[in-house]
Formats: sequence, structure tokens, C-alpha cells
Amino acid sequence: MKLLKDRILKDGKSFDKGILKVDSFINHQMDPILMKSIAVEFVRRFGNLPINKIITIEASGIAPAIMTGYLLELPVVFVKKAKPKTMENMVSTTAYSFTKDKEYTICVSRDFLNENDKVLFIDDFLANGNAAIAVNDLVKEAGAQLYGMGFIIEKSFQEGGKRLRKLNIHVESLAQIKELGNNKIIFED
Amino acid sequence: MKLLKDRILKDGKSFDKGILKVDSFINHQMDPILMKSIAVEFVRRFGNLPINKIITIEASGIAPAIMTGYLLELPVVFVKKAKPKTMENMVSTTAYSFTKDKEYTICVSRDFLNENDKVLFIDDFLANGNAAIAVNDLVKEAGAQLYGMGFIIEKSFQEGGKRLRKLNIHVESLAQIKELGNNKIIFED
Repeated sequence: MKLLKDRILKDGKSFDKGILKVDSFINHQMDPILMKSIAVEFVRRFGNLPINKIITIEASGIAPAIMTGYLLELPVVFVKKAKPKTMENMVSTTAYSFTKDKEYTICVSRDFLNENDKVLFIDDFLANGNAAIAVNDLVKEAGAQLYGMGFIIEKSFQEGGKRLRKLNIHVESLAQIKELGNNKIIFED
Repeated sequence: MKLLKDRILKDGKSFDKGILKVDSFINHQMDPILMKSIAVEFVRRFGNLPINKIITIEASGIAPAIMTGYLLELPVVFVKKAKPKTMENMVSTTAYSFTKDKEYTICVSRDFLNENDKVLFIDDFLANGNAAIAVNDLVKEAGAQLYGMGFIIEKSFQEGGKRLRKLNIHVESLAQIKELGNNKIIFED
């Protein structure tokens, strides 16, 4: 997706250890016009599938997910990263955060994810894939069917993409980055 | 906003102790079409103001905020509820959560909230107003100007609305609820 790659080159910041900062337009401050264009691209890639719901994970997945749900006129459910004490009838699983070096619980209400659901998962980043794999477990545990996973940015020098594709998940990433650091951002062809 | 009130009556669930569940269309599962209509109403009420940015607080404020930002072609910044260890140059303050009975830190990068910003704050709920007042503190601390606060639902039997209006904040709530419980939901006139 050329518009996105151009924006990453213009406003993204690359650091050593594979760190990319896109917090001026994707995951802290967000550009809603870009989010809509991103959603259009997700619709192009997944819109032919018989999905009835979009799922995402709080917080930075919500913007691209809500725009995709808006274009496809589908409900959007966000998976929570902590167990609310007031929520009943939940499905939950644990995910490991590499950045924070700890396990955390992700959960969703069975009222909104169950055997009636054919879902597309949307998130901002795919890196080591831990969150996405936990979501895949959660979808299975809820008895729903996962039809695909769409990411704005994939760090293809990390393992997430390989891990998900090995599970036969249909993965689409709108910008795949193969190298970061030294102020350089290099995309896959 | 009639469309919203009708939807709350249809799909909202009222419980004793002033509890309202709208998690099938607002704050866990979200209806993006309704979110867009909500954003249109926020544009009607605030669109004349010279704002350059929408701010919200993760996670359930993001959907209405991104739709409002989309319609007004303005960037949207979400205030974080935990201090990320990788974020520098932050403004932060503490907020008290009544539901969780504990204090927590909210924060935002000074890169995206500073003396150049004239902001509109959008969130899903106004109840006791603790989160909104913390955001007001944060905006002041950052040197930005707050032009208004828009909420999807205000529980007008709680103190939040009064507290914010006493601070001369321009508050707009799209549905004001004066009574909950016994399976009843009663709106202000």
C-alpha cells in the first residue's frame, strides 16, 4: 500500500534494535483519513470473505478496526487486555508480552464472540506474533471461526508472520518492513 | 439524539445501583454505523469551534473520537491509562477510579498535546467525572486549551456533569439518563 509506505517513510522513526515509532499517525496520535484508507485496503483484501464481525485488541487496533467495520457495515468487538471484574460469561487466555516481559490475560464476552461468528482480526502491528496467537486461541476457545488477520505494519524480520502462516491463517500486512535501524526503514518488495 | 436514545432503550440493560450495560453496541462490541451518527451529532454541537485536534482516553473513547476526527479531518490523540516505559517527553496526572477503587496514571506525549493545541475531548461515558477532570488537568498541564467535552451517555444522577460545568467546561452529552434500575432507563427531557 503505497500511501501507507510513503507516510511511514515521511513520519516514521527508525531506531536500533528493530524499533519503529509511528506514534504521530498510527498508535498514539492517529490520522483518521489515513485510517480510512487503510480500512479500504483491508476491505479489498478481505471483503470477499463471509465474515460477520471484526475483532481487534485494545487500544491501538480499535481505530483501523472501526473504520473497516464501518465500510463493511459489521460490528466490531475489541478484546480486552485485563479482566474486568464486572464482566461475566467470558472467554479468556494468556498472552506473553515481550516488551513488558510478563504474561497478561486477554478476554472477551461470549455474548460477542461465539460459535455463530466468522471473524476478521485487525491490528496495528505484527512483530513476534504473541498477541495475534493469543487472539487465535481465544477465537478457538469461543468456538468462532477466524477467516483472516490484517495488520497495518508487519516487521517481517521478526517471527510473527511465519508463526501465523504456519497455522494456516490468512495474513495480510499493508506494509512489510524487513530492516530497521540507523535511521533507515527498508520495506519488502 | 433520538437514534441513540432509541438504541439504548432497545439494547441497553439497566441494573440496580445505577448500572447501565451498553456493551453490545458501545463499549465492548461497537456498532460503527451508530458511531458515525454519534460523530455527526458531535460535529453539529462542536464543529463551529476553532479546534485543531480531538483527544480521547483509551479504550472505549477511541471509536467515537476517530469518527469525529474523520468527519472534521482532524488528528485524534488517545490519552493512555498506563505509563509506557518507552515513552519520553510525557505529561501525566493521576485519576481515581471509583469502579476499581484505586488511583491510576493517565499520560500523553507532549509531542501531541502542547501549547499549540485547541482540543475537543470525546468519551463514551460521563458518570462521576473523575476521568474527565483528570483529562482537564492533563490538558492544562500540557499548556493546551480545552474547547469542549462530548460524551455519548451522561448519567445525570451522578456528579460528573455538575463538576465539569462548574469548571466552565462546555459539556455536551448525547443522551442524559436520570434514572436506572428495575429494568428501567429514564432520560432527562
